[in-house]
Amino acid sequence: MSKGLLFVLSGPSGVGKGTVSAELRIRKPELIYSVSATTRQPRTGEVDGVNYFFKTHDEFKKMIDNDMLLEYAEYVGNHYGTPRDFVDRTLEAGNDIFLEIEVQGALKVMEKFPEGVFIFLTPPSFEELQNRLQNRGTETMDTINNRMTVAADELEMMKHYDYSVVNDEIDLACKRIESIIIAEHCKIRK
Amino acid sequence: MSKGLLFVLSGPSGVGKGTVSAELRIRKPELIYSVSATTRQPRTGEVDGVNYFFKTHDEFKKMIDNDMLLEYAEYVGNHYGTPRDFVDRTLEAGNDIFLEIEVQGALKVMEKFPEGVFIFLTPPSFEELQNRLQNRGTETMDTINNRMTVAADELEMMKHYDYSVVNDEIDLACKRIESIIIAEHCKIRK
Repeated sequence: MSKGLLFVLSGPSGVGKGTVSAELRIRKPELIYSVSATTRQPRTGEVDGVNYFFKTHDEFKKMIDNDMLLEYAEYVGNHYGTPRDFVDRTLEAGNDIFLEIEVQGALKVMEKFPEGVFIFLTPPSFEELQNRLQNRGTETMDTINNRMTVAADELEMMKHYDYSVVNDEIDLACKRIESIIIAEHCKIRK
Repeated sequence: MSKGLLFVLSGPSGVGKGTVSAELRIRKPELIYSVSATTRQPRTGEVDGVNYFFKTHDEFKKMIDNDMLLEYAEYVGNHYGTPRDFVDRTLEAGNDIFLEIEVQGALKVMEKFPEGVFIFLTPPSFEELQNRLQNRGTETMDTINNRMTVAADELEMMKHYDYSVVNDEIDLACKRIESIIIAEHCKIRK
């Protein structure tokens, strides 16, 4: 049996990673998604090991110290990370694993897991990304401009990825990602 | 406008290159197929520049001398080759070009056109290839054994290709090749 492949979907904030990722879950129910570890409290209905691996701050710190995370970040006082063990076990069992993640996290995963397949989701144009960030609603122009600067920096990171997929239409974007998954399984690794 | 890509479909004799290639023509009518040059006489209904570029032996020799062929071979007293010019013009116009070819020819194209995408069509198993070669009918066991030796040598060449596609079912094989075409257009070239 051959090992599975790690697919990492990433891209600037506002590009539609979450939407594309959710649609892929429906179209490819056999695809296993990475489960993050977090120190935040479980919300009603969230199941440990399904939605997240819930950890105490101490446990999370130990995971960092023992290099058990492919990447991690802090967000509003809580830690979030990708446990390497869950990825490794899924791949060893011959299954692919799919990880949807911010650009900074993806760059860290590249360092620790260069054999992964890194897909960068891009907006049809920079203007379109600006529209999407503005139409989210309540943010001030300062916040939006700040996000645009971050997005421009993140677009610069695209060159480090294996593939870029334009998110012009959700159906097309998903079809491209599904094609990448099939093609990568046909690839002769040298 | 971005340049097109050259896709080369190849594989051992008996693997079903012709069948897969014909099915792809139906499924992807927009794909432009490479037109070979040949010194053999046109058959009834064959059109110069569509079925083949028909050449005299002198003209063909000049094409060889002037490095105008990506590869060429002799077969029952006639020459067959892939004109580089037709490939270049198609790619420059932003279109992909598809070339179905024997393994020896593909290896020569790799040398002259390493930026091509090389796809190796494989039988589901070596036994299956043996069955297919035997079931072609009238050949003696000597001929079949000889072909199997050639096929085994050709299978060894797979490692030089970019992708291997199993021809288990024609529909699946075509879907894999179509996926490779889509994925290659998403690839970030470094």
